[in-house]
Amino acid sequence: MKKLLLLIIIAPIFAIAQTDDSLFIKKISDEILTNGKAYDLLYQLTKQVGGRLAGSPQFAKAVQWGKSSMQLMGADTVYLQECMVSHWVRGGKDKVEIVETNHVKQNKLLDGLALGNSLGSNGKPVVAEVIAIKDFAELEKRKDEVKGKIVFYNYPFNPTYVQTFKAYGESGVYRHAGASRAAKYGAVAVLVRSLTEATDNNPHTGAMSYNDSFPKIPAAALGLKDADALYELCKKSSLKISLTTYAKMLPDTLGYNVIAELRGTEFPNQYITVGGHLDSWDVNEGAHDDGAGIVHTIEVMRALKALGYHPKHTIRFVLFANEENSTNGIGGGYKYAAVAKEKNEQHIFALESDEGGFTPRGFGFSVNANQLQKVRTWLPLLQPYGTEEMNYGGGGSDIGPLARVLKTPLSGFVPDNQRYFDVHHARSDVFEAVNKRELLLGAVNMAGLIYLIDKYGL
Amino acid sequence: MKKLLLLIIIAPIFAIAQTDDSLFIKKISDEILTNGKAYDLLYQLTKQVGGRLAGSPQFAKAVQWGKSSMQLMGADTVYLQECMVSHWVRGGKDKVEIVETNHVKQNKLLDGLALGNSLGSNGKPVVAEVIAIKDFAELEKRKDEVKGKIVFYNYPFNPTYVQTFKAYGESGVYRHAGASRAAKYGAVAVLVRSLTEATDNNPHTGAMSYNDSFPKIPAAALGLKDADALYELCKKSSLKISLTTYAKMLPDTLGYNVIAELRGTEFPNQYITVGGHLDSWDVNEGAHDDGAGIVHTIEVMRALKALGYHPKHTIRFVLFANEENSTNGIGGGYKYAAVAKEKNEQHIFALESDEGGFTPRGFGFSVNANQLQKVRTWLPLLQPYGTEEMNYGGGGSDIGPLARVLKTPLSGFVPDNQRYFDVHHARSDVFEAVNKRELLLGAVNMAGLIYLIDKYGL
Repeated sequence: MKKLLLLIIIAPIFAIAQTDDSLFIKKISDEILTNGKAYDLLYQLTKQVGGRLAGSPQFAKAVQWGKSSMQLMGADTVYLQECMVSHWVRGGKDKVEIVETNHVKQNKLLDGLALGNSLGSNGKPVVAEVIAIKDFAELEKRKDEVKGKIVFYNYPFNPTYVQTFKAYGESGVYRHAGASRAAKYGAVAVLVRSLTEATDNNPHTGAMSYNDSFPKIPAAALGLKDADALYELCKKSSLKISLTTYAKMLPDTLGYNVIAELRGTEFPNQYITVGGHLDSWDVNEGAHDDGAGIVHTIEVMRALKALGYHPKHTIRFVLFANEENSTNGIGGGYKYAAVAKEKNEQHIFALESDEGGFTPRGFGFSVNANQLQKVRTWLPLLQPYGTEEMNYGGGGSDIGPLARVLKTPLSGFVPDNQRYFDVHHARSDVFEAVNKRELLLGAVNMAGLIYLIDKYGL
Repeated sequence: MKKLLLLIIIAPIFAIAQTDDSLFIKKISDEILTNGKAYDLLYQLTKQVGGRLAGSPQFAKAVQWGKSSMQLMGADTVYLQECMVSHWVRGGKDKVEIVETNHVKQNKLLDGLALGNSLGSNGKPVVAEVIAIKDFAELEKRKDEVKGKIVFYNYPFNPTYVQTFKAYGESGVYRHAGASRAAKYGAVAVLVRSLTEATDNNPHTGAMSYNDSFPKIPAAALGLKDADALYELCKKSSLKISLTTYAKMLPDTLGYNVIAELRGTEFPNQYITVGGHLDSWDVNEGAHDDGAGIVHTIEVMRALKALGYHPKHTIRFVLFANEENSTNGIGGGYKYAAVAKEKNEQHIFALESDEGGFTPRGFGFSVNANQLQKVRTWLPLLQPYGTEEMNYGGGGSDIGPLARVLKTPLSGFVPDNQRYFDVHHARSDVFEAVNKRELLLGAVNMAGLIYLIDKYGL
């Protein structure tokens, strides 16, 4: 009976709060869908700055753009945070060519792209016979055939996984570790089927790493049409390929996280972080990856400010340096967490957008069970804007170190991911691949979640 | 106690059924995502047939394509169903030009497109002053200024509606009824802001209709950039526009629904219909509208057949004639329902896909409360493939007559709709605007629902 009474008293209060919240989130949505600047900002970042690999002059330009954009959009304060970043350069135009089929000379160019962090052939062609294999199991079985050859990994991106990130996780190991696994058996270079299901032939680059125990051989990605054709050709012919790449790893260099703040009115020393990564690959405009996350971040700030919202906690909007090819312990995310720890900052929550600017599906959370239960009570408030899922598992490479160092609860924005790997790390990741409304709706849902976290805590 | 016992007995059976069902739906998904033909079929329909307005030679070609495609994909039987279709022709290249600003001659071309079913100016220019208005309320207020003028409706597509169909419904009345509303007060033509939020300047056509009480004046759509510029110009200047259109309404003519069947093993005389409309506007490839629905329909059939599924009920796969500009009581959907009634057929369910080939969000239902409750128990089975919503409200123009004539329960496939009105009825609705995986996943969810309906009824 007492329990019942309590319910009767609590229910109307909760109902009022929900109504207030739903009204404010509707205001956020109307503000962003009507006056949102995310799309225009993305145009600037992609077309006026362009590709912006860590350490490049374009990245420096992006930092200045980020700083002045966040100032213009009403941040209470904007500052740069120094950090060391990896500094890989492509160094020239990669060239992959079939030069011999069954001992007959050819000159068929393939569309190849050196993998990030790989070392090039110093502009000298590596010419060798190709051995086409499907997976590491086949590599192990045929290890005695590998010496002196170019190993071509043709591991497919599994089309039956509805969640495309699952296919990325599974195939990614060939890009990451394929070179050293093949070098172990004497391979002189590797070619890797791109991590995509795209219907075009664009190769997709992305970070790889070497095992220091083996020679550091060149590594390049092929698009799907070339990969399919090459695999078929290898089945019936002996083939020689000439691979020329120029890539170099230079010493780590100075970069910057760009940080804006809306100061908290009640708990100014408790922080909520919202961010994405400012760097991109060199071969595209980094529109979905992660221009979208950058302009989501700025748009969330702009909208809260435009609505006159005074957060209880200090909200940090962070454009992180060097996600794409940071090596262990280097890069913007690591530095941000290290400084937070050094200053003994209290970080109550961090949210990242780094899965593209597509239509929202929800959020993934790396939080405890009570916290997940709490955020799920907000589902009805965000559902009208596209959030359907609030599940375990999520965060982002840039905010990951916060969780490791300070046990900060994390979330990652989850947009629809069917088109993501069509453009991810490929030339086609350009402004035109982003839809304005889909992009803006991402910011609506992120701003809604941040508002609720700020108001109710976790 | 009895109730509890019943539960204990039923629960494991239900669990087994769910497992069988989830396994079969996974098979459907794997089959479609691996071997799906929807994308290749869409290529044929859009690139080899192209735009296919009812009554056009291209529509006749589409009918033959549909028939042979469904035969190739394994239908038990395929046949054509004669029906009368509206026969509107554009007749020439529409021309809209600003010819005078403040009595000074100009020759600024605007990108205009005659509305479907509108009558043209017989190739003779209609030259008149423009009156720019926002909505019907303003028209009524300024009705005395309208005589002899071209009325330009600049009613915006509301960006704050997260569901874009809501904005379409609200703005659509200006396209549908604007001409006669203006002709009532003596207007000589109308221009209508396109029903879109696209960032380009493509005009969007679409059906309109005349009120026979007033003169049937020409009507054309303008893209958003031209509409915005014209509206601004009209605020500060007097403007004359010259509008030349050639459109004609010819007598209704013969068309065909293309119908394929998989025959039912238990209830061959009970029908489940799956369909989309085969016709499209003349100015594009009708890729999302409704090429997607057509290839969804064929793919659902192909996949069920490929998996050796023998349906209990007869499943009809219908490519309907003449949705876009059918006039009252004319067109493929009406004929299909009329024949069904004539033959006293029992139609237990109909599903339409006519909202594009985008990533799935769910289904809308026009069913009773018990039926909705029943389909919602299947939500966990379809969620892994993208279905999150199973709500009231849904169907499609082509299956609507079945509900009216035979009270058939209906459903409409609901893909994400953020990009739909960017291309809807515009030149940009082409094959390249469709993503392969998004398209295939639509067929996965539709096939899953049809399987469940066939197995459990409604």
